[in-house]
Amino acid sequence: MSSNSSLSNPTGAPEGKSGRARMLIACPDRPGIVAAVSHFLYEHGANIVQSDQYTMDPEGGMFFIRFEFDLNDLERELPILVEDFARISDRFDMKWHTFRASRKKRIAVFVSKEDHCLLELLWQWKAGDLDADISMVVSNHPDMRELVESFGIPYHHIPFTAATKEEGERKQLEVVADKVDLVVLARYMQIITPKFIEQFPNRIINIHHSFLPAFVGGKPYAQAYTRGVKIIGATAHYVTEELDGGPIIEQDVQRVSHRDEVSHLKRIGRTIERVVLARAVKWHIEDRIIVHQNKTVVFN
Amino acid sequence: MSSNSSLSNPTGAPEGKSGRARMLIACPDRPGIVAAVSHFLYEHGANIVQSDQYTMDPEGGMFFIRFEFDLNDLERELPILVEDFARISDRFDMKWHTFRASRKKRIAVFVSKEDHCLLELLWQWKAGDLDADISMVVSNHPDMRELVESFGIPYHHIPFTAATKEEGERKQLEVVADKVDLVVLARYMQIITPKFIEQFPNRIINIHHSFLPAFVGGKPYAQAYTRGVKIIGATAHYVTEELDGGPIIEQDVQRVSHRDEVSHLKRIGRTIERVVLARAVKWHIEDRIIVHQNKTVVFN
Amino acid sequence: MSSNSSLSNPTGAPEGKSGRARMLIACPDRPGIVAAVSHFLYEHGANIVQSDQYTMDPEGGMFFIRFEFDLNDLERELPILVEDFARISDRFDMKWHTFRASRKKRIAVFVSKEDHCLLELLWQWKAGDLDADISMVVSNHPDMRELVESFGIPYHHIPFTAATKEEGERKQLEVVADKVDLVVLARYMQIITPKFIEQFPNRIINIHHSFLPAFVGGKPYAQAYTRGVKIIGATAHYVTEELDGGPIIEQDVQRVSHRDEVSHLKRIGRTIERVVLARAVKWHIEDRIIVHQNKTVVFN
Amino acid sequence: MSSNSSLSNPTGAPEGKSGRARMLIACPDRPGIVAAVSHFLYEHGANIVQSDQYTMDPEGGMFFIRFEFDLNDLERELPILVEDFARISDRFDMKWHTFRASRKKRIAVFVSKEDHCLLELLWQWKAGDLDADISMVVSNHPDMRELVESFGIPYHHIPFTAATKEEGERKQLEVVADKVDLVVLARYMQIITPKFIEQFPNRIINIHHSFLPAFVGGKPYAQAYTRGVKIIGATAHYVTEELDGGPIIEQDVQRVSHRDEVSHLKRIGRTIERVVLARAVKWHIEDRIIVHQNKTVVFN
Repeated sequence: MSSNSSLSNPTGAPEGKSGRARMLIACPDRPGIVAAVSHFLYEHGANIVQSDQYTMDPEGGMFFIRFEFDLNDLERELPILVEDFARISDRFDMKWHTFRASRKKRIAVFVSKEDHCLLELLWQWKAGDLDADISMVVSNHPDMRELVESFGIPYHHIPFTAATKEEGERKQLEVVADKVDLVVLARYMQIITPKFIEQFPNRIINIHHSFLPAFVGGKPYAQAYTRGVKIIGATAHYVTEELDGGPIIEQDVQRVSHRDEVSHLKRIGRTIERVVLARAVKWHIEDRIIVHQNKTVVFN
Repeated sequence: MSSNSSLSNPTGAPEGKSGRARMLIACPDRPGIVAAVSHFLYEHGANIVQSDQYTMDPEGGMFFIRFEFDLNDLERELPILVEDFARISDRFDMKWHTFRASRKKRIAVFVSKEDHCLLELLWQWKAGDLDADISMVVSNHPDMRELVESFGIPYHHIPFTAATKEEGERKQLEVVADKVDLVVLARYMQIITPKFIEQFPNRIINIHHSFLPAFVGGKPYAQAYTRGVKIIGATAHYVTEELDGGPIIEQDVQRVSHRDEVSHLKRIGRTIERVVLARAVKWHIEDRIIVHQNKTVVFN
Repeated sequence: MSSNSSLSNPTGAPEGKSGRARMLIACPDRPGIVAAVSHFLYEHGANIVQSDQYTMDPEGGMFFIRFEFDLNDLERELPILVEDFARISDRFDMKWHTFRASRKKRIAVFVSKEDHCLLELLWQWKAGDLDADISMVVSNHPDMRELVESFGIPYHHIPFTAATKEEGERKQLEVVADKVDLVVLARYMQIITPKFIEQFPNRIINIHHSFLPAFVGGKPYAQAYTRGVKIIGATAHYVTEELDGGPIIEQDVQRVSHRDEVSHLKRIGRTIERVVLARAVKWHIEDRIIVHQNKTVVFN
Repeated sequence: MSSNSSLSNPTGAPEGKSGRARMLIACPDRPGIVAAVSHFLYEHGANIVQSDQYTMDPEGGMFFIRFEFDLNDLERELPILVEDFARISDRFDMKWHTFRASRKKRIAVFVSKEDHCLLELLWQWKAGDLDADISMVVSNHPDMRELVESFGIPYHHIPFTAATKEEGERKQLEVVADKVDLVVLARYMQIITPKFIEQFPNRIINIHHSFLPAFVGGKPYAQAYTRGVKIIGATAHYVTEELDGGPIIEQDVQRVSHRDEVSHLKRIGRTIERVVLARAVKWHIEDRIIVHQNKTVVFN
């Protein structure tokens, strides 16, 4: 999939040429942060091509900033930059991360029986619109093996029952361990346990088929039909221990009418789910999201 | 406000000329309803200019239809038509109503301290976009008297406390009794009691400042901020005894981001509330809404 | 694809059971049309499950109506109904068509090198959301053969140059002749000649990648970038001899910003194009569209 | 209107306390800009509470940045900061401006006979949502004097004919000269001449009632009806010598259908126009817009 890398890692670029990196920072707000960080980056030869910041409250709130910068000889210089940054981060009490744009995130997609969200991710990936590696698909059902393998992607069928769920999740953790950076629940109809979640803090994205917090729990389209809403939606969120309660990344909606029975709502909803999940995954892999107190700051 | 009547009642039309009427019907579905009603209307000289129907389920569900028709000498002919219609309605077990388009509905707008929804209604009414009479504004505060009276509309200031609420509502019922066809709660911050509601079944429209059923109850914008939603909305619904639980007429939403603090959400929300409430009122006064089992069929 | 037929043709329905049909009528407006047609349908045992009408102007305008009805023993009774309808259609000077819902329309999809619109149609078709037969894909390029054939659909690669275009189109007409009811141009980058168009009047749907009439012609995303618009869109329309000038079926849009360079606009646009084209095709195959004077009446 | 000032200039703040300022910069991109400016601001005691930047192209493109910062003793310190900034701006070849948030922009609203856009601005201003002074309303018609004066705002009725247009515009320039910072054409139906425009470069905002570049020129709703579009819109743009060709600030749209005749389109459009114009004015008065090569960078 060489086309996937075109944005971040021009094919054939000779070693030592400029590379793109990103930096995400969260810290208590006080004067001088932007000056200190941008001066630091300048000193280290980084050319800032994008910056976004958000201050919750100028008086004593949190401060968040995202830098995207180009650096000559990234392989050699970024580790030095990272090491030196300690003097800034200590001074301002920062939580921070750097990411190389060329180091694609590895994704495990979890699915059950509905394929629309998986298909959207596969197509966007194949079209070069999703700058990541889909490393594997994991499912408790065998149904999508042929589809997934036709894309050259490994398919792990890990069946389990209510009685063997613990064992099933243990096997899931085995296949993803050290091999993926992000888990995407693409209409995966099982509840993830805290044990699994703690391995991937703010790195499991789920698509919920309602505009949360409306219609928490099961069968949201049936709930929406019964309530007679005029708008339905979908929500992509990070998974936390609270069911459907994690930080919301993205939502979108579409108008419906009294004519739309539950099967229509599901069909309309499928398109919303696909688009919303794909956007959330895209923002995550482009390092645009900071989670703070069960909410997301999305620099998009 | 002669401009208000331009759509339904062409100025200077000589008596006896054609007039516009509307008919709303709900009944159990079975073959022959459209044929019977449209033949009946034809026999009575009515020219159908619009019809909309909705069948919940062809096998044993409910059937809803709305006709808009022109009738020569409406004043004389409509009562005859209505009387004759009994033979059709009995045959099909119909609930039905007819309305003259020229007989404008009389509205009482209830407000507290926020004026944006009231202003939108006044402005649309003055612009001729709301084909109704705003007969009075009722408030538990004195603040908007000057504004309302500048439009030539009576303002009833009926103050009350928690202790005197019963007395207050009695006075409210006195001023609206037999004088209004529709009560619009335009950000009226008091709960309406069952006693009041039963006087206006499916004829009280409230605007709730969230996309229901999300954020039922008080301070929805603060709730939305806390939950970190990416979309906020508003809902117009008929008032029933269940708080924020009545049939939804219309909803709309707008995107927000992490940057939008509660005061921003309120400001953005004001525009959504204005538009959503005005649409719902418009559809009600044009007889486009049928309520069935706590949901609305809206023929728009 | 037995799942495709679930809506219109319940599997295992014994011969002679009720079937669904649709009727589209356009005629000059005058009193009595709805009564006459609905009475006629009732007499012939048809149960109307949906009707939509539109009157351009009650005084002397055109009248359009769509009926969806169930009929016992459709195979036997529909031809009789059609024959008898002449007495109604003559009386009201109607243009009209009937369609059996179970007789799926056969589609030829024309593509060039971009696959996103084709993929959307294939996916919706496979998911059972597009109640039609995709009979073939025709392309002037060989690129998508493998993809298309993996769905079990014939792929006709008909290459041609500017010099051999006439010959190429002759071959295209050969492969589609009598085999398809609808031609869908799914980002097909060649201009269709009048000779081809006259074989499929109002039966060729094109997706144009702008909100027409903005950015007629080539490279609309580059034009949009240059003009600095804040919204981009796509338009599905029937193809007529006037380039990008045929009757518009559906449009949709999405917000963009100064940050979105041409490649972003194209990527965002791809999702709009997919959704808009799929909606237009869906409405066509469900017989929801009447063309009148280069505009569409869409009963959806 | 003391409520208007609540956001930017807390009433009763003792002299010498912190004040809010904004800085807009455009320059050719090169490394070190963010570092230099943020370090400069830090040195001068400014606390950056918001920054947004946009790089057209990291290799040789333009760079745009907006800072919002708080400064102690703004009245005394800002002039010093501005004077010192020359050494930065010279080094990077910058075009730049600073603005005090507390110094409200003075607006002249130009109207003809339609009042909806004016009313929206007056209401938002009265509600405290528009942090500016509406200094006057100028019209070639007398119709809105009473309305405008009821808000305590001067109304200048300057009638003219085609023959006396030059004289009329001379009078307009007299009343606005040195008294307004922004001219808003709120459905003002006269063409502004180059002589007027050159007095207010990128400081005249017009609302055009179509989603430009569709339906340039007159009667866009009639054009939209004739073309049969499924979406209508409105566009706010800066006025340049090219009619309807200036930099687009904001656009929005709404769905319509075949049922919507020209009068409906106008009514629906009025709401879009109001919202779009108000947003554009808001962004302008909050110094969020940079114009570059007939396009806008909007930091919102």
